[in-house]
Amino acid sequence: MTKAWNEIDSLVRIASGAKAPLEKRDPAGDDLFPDRAHAEAATVENAKAIDKLQDRLWAERKRALLVVLQGIDTSGKDGTVRSVFNQSGPLGVSVTAFGRPSEEELAHDYLWRVHAAVPKKGMIGVFNRSHYEDVLVVKVRGLAPAETVERRYEQVNAFEKHLSENGVTILKFMLHISKDEQRQRLQERLDEPEKNWKFNPGDLEDRALWDEYVKAYDAVLERCSTAHAPWRVIPADKKWRRNAIISAIVRGTLEEMNPSYPKPDWKPTDFKIV
Amino acid sequence: MTKAWNEIDSLVRIASGAKAPLEKRDPAGDDLFPDRAHAEAATVENAKAIDKLQDRLWAERKRALLVVLQGIDTSGKDGTVRSVFNQSGPLGVSVTAFGRPSEEELAHDYLWRVHAAVPKKGMIGVFNRSHYEDVLVVKVRGLAPAETVERRYEQVNAFEKHLSENGVTILKFMLHISKDEQRQRLQERLDEPEKNWKFNPGDLEDRALWDEYVKAYDAVLERCSTAHAPWRVIPADKKWRRNAIISAIVRGTLEEMNPSYPKPDWKPTDFKIV
Repeated sequence: MTKAWNEIDSLVRIASGAKAPLEKRDPAGDDLFPDRAHAEAATVENAKAIDKLQDRLWAERKRALLVVLQGIDTSGKDGTVRSVFNQSGPLGVSVTAFGRPSEEELAHDYLWRVHAAVPKKGMIGVFNRSHYEDVLVVKVRGLAPAETVERRYEQVNAFEKHLSENGVTILKFMLHISKDEQRQRLQERLDEPEKNWKFNPGDLEDRALWDEYVKAYDAVLERCSTAHAPWRVIPADKKWRRNAIISAIVRGTLEEMNPSYPKPDWKPTDFKIV
Repeated sequence: MTKAWNEIDSLVRIASGAKAPLEKRDPAGDDLFPDRAHAEAATVENAKAIDKLQDRLWAERKRALLVVLQGIDTSGKDGTVRSVFNQSGPLGVSVTAFGRPSEEELAHDYLWRVHAAVPKKGMIGVFNRSHYEDVLVVKVRGLAPAETVERRYEQVNAFEKHLSENGVTILKFMLHISKDEQRQRLQERLDEPEKNWKFNPGDLEDRALWDEYVKAYDAVLERCSTAHAPWRVIPADKKWRRNAIISAIVRGTLEEMNPSYPKPDWKPTDFKIV
């Protein structure tokens, strides 16, 4: 890599309590992985390394990694999963997509369905959207009273602190694209027949609320970037750059976790297989 | 492919009600995919095709595919998942491993945890072991009364019929390896430090019960290979052959299901993205 992963990380990580308005963050990110071919090669290498690290995580079976992906429609959450985690595959990685809650889910507190989906020890779990929707779409569209939403930031921080104290390392990525990039990607969904099914006319309503979403994200970044679970804002206008940055941080985090194969309490010569 | 997938399939599929003793089935399977390089290339092509078909399955969101993998220790269930489904990745494929049931699971009927893990519409679900353990290990080790086990074959058939009538296509693969191949694979786990964690001394107890397991599998194949969910016995001594056969059948099955992208009820020109 041109830069060590933690140098890259320091450029995208939001310090605890810092004001971090999205409008001051560049969705292009040209200074990170300037070269496309290099970025793509790095992503492939990182994905392979993540696969090997996941094998150790599973063998050790003491800790889990939770990767939270947030971002507006078309920001590339699905594409990120494919490029970073297909090498590991479905055996060691589970993905949970959080859509509109069901009646059963709404009958519980908003973290109930989220807690149930936290990856078990040994696994990497990916949240495609997450409990943050409860302070994003819920706030922007007024789906809960303002004072209810207001209390959630601290509740979310407490929940994530609990997880991090109980063996779950949390990586939160906000996929940051420009409004113009979203326009192009929505247009592709209209223009390419095989992508038509991905186009939801309702997405245009959210697009019309762009500035409100930016404000809601700003509140999340300022209030929920904690020492135990900081946010990373990923320049995501270029898919290959987004993949390179995220895969580098996931790999680096797993390397720091350094899961190890358990030592057997037997010697190979203890057994004769007949 | 040298042979069309349904020709291959006809050689491994157990006809409904047929006696199909394992000892008459060759775990080598030299007549299927005789050439290794060709088999490996076919597997890669099949995995890519499965990925594209899964995308259509998800877009359509009306049906699901359930892949049941059974086989004794070291028969290659994990390896099958990697080679057949890593191209699709964790976004469209969920894997559920069924181990020893928890207290909570034991407090319910044995199909409770299984039903909960059935893939939702649009997904491919893989069972790494399954409800068949309830007529395999449970029978061999006497974990339930014989008459209880006896009733389960029909219960399982009824359960699978229910699923198949409700949009879930079921593919059941029994990974068939020879006793000598298992010896070699267990020995590898003893000899290679990075595989030590996979070795469980308890596996030798099951190996000692080899003949009892064969009998239990024979009963499963004879009684639970139905028109709506037939068993396939896959020659699995060669990993590359096993992967080629299974990927061909999964691909062929998805092609027959022929999921289609939904037709939008709008025209691209209906929208102007601003």
